[in-house]
Amino acid sequence: MDFARPLPAFLVQRYHGWKATTYAENRAWYRRLADEGQRPRAMVISCCDSRVHVTSIFGADQGEFFIHRNIANLVPPYEPDGNQHGTSAAVEYAVTALKVAHLVVLGHSQCGGVQGCLDMCEGRAPALEESSSFVGRWMDILRPGYEAVKEAEDKPRALEKEAVKVSLNNLMTFPFVREAVEGGRLSLHGLWTDIGEGGLSCYDPASDGFVPI
Amino acid sequence: MDFARPLPAFLVQRYHGWKATTYAENRAWYRRLADEGQRPRAMVISCCDSRVHVTSIFGADQGEFFIHRNIANLVPPYEPDGNQHGTSAAVEYAVTALKVAHLVVLGHSQCGGVQGCLDMCEGRAPALEESSSFVGRWMDILRPGYEAVKEAEDKPRALEKEAVKVSLNNLMTFPFVREAVEGGRLSLHGLWTDIGEGGLSCYDPASDGFVPI
Amino acid sequence: MDFARPLPAFLVQRYHGWKATTYAENRAWYRRLADEGQRPRAMVISCCDSRVHVTSIFGADQGEFFIHRNIANLVPPYEPDGNQHGTSAAVEYAVTALKVAHLVVLGHSQCGGVQGCLDMCEGRAPALEESSSFVGRWMDILRPGYEAVKEAEDKPRALEKEAVKVSLNNLMTFPFVREAVEGGRLSLHGLWTDIGEGGLSCYDPASDGFVPI
Amino acid sequence: MDFARPLPAFLVQRYHGWKATTYAENRAWYRRLADEGQRPRAMVISCCDSRVHVTSIFGADQGEFFIHRNIANLVPPYEPDGNQHGTSAAVEYAVTALKVAHLVVLGHSQCGGVQGCLDMCEGRAPALEESSSFVGRWMDILRPGYEAVKEAEDKPRALEKEAVKVSLNNLMTFPFVREAVEGGRLSLHGLWTDIGEGGLSCYDPASDGFVPI
Repeated sequence: MDFARPLPAFLVQRYHGWKATTYAENRAWYRRLADEGQRPRAMVISCCDSRVHVTSIFGADQGEFFIHRNIANLVPPYEPDGNQHGTSAAVEYAVTALKVAHLVVLGHSQCGGVQGCLDMCEGRAPALEESSSFVGRWMDILRPGYEAVKEAEDKPRALEKEAVKVSLNNLMTFPFVREAVEGGRLSLHGLWTDIGEGGLSCYDPASDGFVPI
Repeated sequence: MDFARPLPAFLVQRYHGWKATTYAENRAWYRRLADEGQRPRAMVISCCDSRVHVTSIFGADQGEFFIHRNIANLVPPYEPDGNQHGTSAAVEYAVTALKVAHLVVLGHSQCGGVQGCLDMCEGRAPALEESSSFVGRWMDILRPGYEAVKEAEDKPRALEKEAVKVSLNNLMTFPFVREAVEGGRLSLHGLWTDIGEGGLSCYDPASDGFVPI
Repeated sequence: MDFARPLPAFLVQRYHGWKATTYAENRAWYRRLADEGQRPRAMVISCCDSRVHVTSIFGADQGEFFIHRNIANLVPPYEPDGNQHGTSAAVEYAVTALKVAHLVVLGHSQCGGVQGCLDMCEGRAPALEESSSFVGRWMDILRPGYEAVKEAEDKPRALEKEAVKVSLNNLMTFPFVREAVEGGRLSLHGLWTDIGEGGLSCYDPASDGFVPI
Repeated sequence: MDFARPLPAFLVQRYHGWKATTYAENRAWYRRLADEGQRPRAMVISCCDSRVHVTSIFGADQGEFFIHRNIANLVPPYEPDGNQHGTSAAVEYAVTALKVAHLVVLGHSQCGGVQGCLDMCEGRAPALEESSSFVGRWMDILRPGYEAVKEAEDKPRALEKEAVKVSLNNLMTFPFVREAVEGGRLSLHGLWTDIGEGGLSCYDPASDGFVPI
């Protein structure tokens, strides 16, 4: 493991700044969180994209949100085949062990993963179609969503929102999610944020669309 | 999809607060990020745990870090088998498309996933051993690490750190990661944070241990 | 006073959000409230419990409710002995200076203070019986209520409701309260809310019980 | 108890609105709070004044803050004399039973209780001086603070801020508060809010004054 490197100086410096301020001011709370365990109110599934800041948008305090981030905020369908499913593991832990009350899927504008899926669906991305492409195979989860948006005026935006809907629908294929939702112990929410405008819309079942908050 | 619910009011209120302050003050930057795309300097792989705040510890600005969060900050070995590998997709996108300069694996204390793996390895978690357990199958990635810690005084802490090492080693099995590291275009870093103490240690190849920053 | 600390950052952020939205939108009203003084319609006496949100349940606007919160929403009997009585001071100010038209005592389920009183009454809480226990001495106010519930099926729930009745009866021992009630200038109301179910019941003199609203 | 009255219709209506919306959307969370108990991060001591909205200013979620409200947000000194001390009971419960990490004293402008104390100190309020005046005796807690402000330009504002300092100092006379502060398990914070301007200032030990946040 001689390839591992020390942390870059700018991160070391920022960490020390955090330790001397935010940590010092909240030490008692962090100790309690360490001693008594987390009890997050909600799970958020968002994209890895560096421009999406869940904690900032929602004024999050340490301990409030259990956050899973993957490419394009996707949830695959329930597949208990004994293989490794990182997203399904995160959902299982949040719902069955932590018993979160809310599960939020947060999509966003200018999503590179969604654009890649669109390019695959329209034959413009042979590299992503290769079986060795991890991004391509991951974005296959969204392929069934293409049908619903192929006539849309702004296909990338439409497919980003479709990704939220696909994930919400896939979540309901997990027996423990469905049971918690039907038993009134868990609420599902679909959001989409516009990075440039700072906008936030919520999926509304009545209109089957996203309405600004 | 009539199961989807509106966003809870306290999150709506906090979002509007963010929009009127943080967004309003940084609008020009968010618009550039939307128009020109992200250009993150580093990828961080951390746990979903609500007590781990990557953006807080590193004083992150919007656009700086491409963040993947999964249970126990694990990276599986390279397996280009055409199946869905969310973590591998995130790594592939960060290294080959975004060309990040740093890749940080951030482990932490009191990790529920690591504790589950330890319980499995020591025969105390039959439910996690079932093939239908997503958390159990996901934590299988860490099982090979148990051998190295079974004599440790504090096994949970030791296995949490081993998880970082296992992930770093697995990262090097990805051809595009190895090439970027060997070509000097990418640095790998292993970190472990103590939630209660606010401590941060970095993996040090010379001593094969974690040293406080 | 070098022990005082700066406000945690997440509260600073949320405050700035409030200032830029709720405050900004209601500035004229807040200025009038500051210039002309408060003129609340009702006083509410509720528990300090973090799960009881008077302002949320009653859709409260700034300036509407004069709110006193103490352990277990108790009012002691009238005792003009020259000692410090915080609750009596709040009642006196609301009734004689602010001349509120309604006084609501709001009890709730899962009340830790009431449970402590029950434990004392049944000999299970020696620590609370010590003269130095502030919680114990405060909960002595409710002790006379134990007699009425000791045969009840669900003693904690019964004693929580008894606490509301004890407080209402004690309120009538204050001459200025009794005069205002008898003069038709003040109405007293007893409520009990079920936290988990979101239920609200009102004390009904006809049945001497609490009936759902 | 035939003096008790049904709840006024406007409150019944608002309650039903809350039940059908906020409660319905957060049912799972309220049930968990009921089943597992509260775990508030902070205690806030504020005034009963209808114009001070702690939950609004801090975007509070149900379960976050343990709130005690009394006239002029005062904490008396530690007096374990076996008498009833409602404020001391609330502080004891928050610090020893709930183990909150932060304790915030929130003062405010145009405080009627503080004005009353000032009037007493300057001989303008004989009625408050009477031993039967609950408000007068309660405000005696603040009398020692008058000395520090009697030369101030704006005495009411200065005494409101002094009330926060007096309370913070009195808090430190409670052995369990002092021990928690010195052991790094509890932080004390002093705030003062300007109702008309929506301003918020924090007590700063370095300058022994209040600085805007």
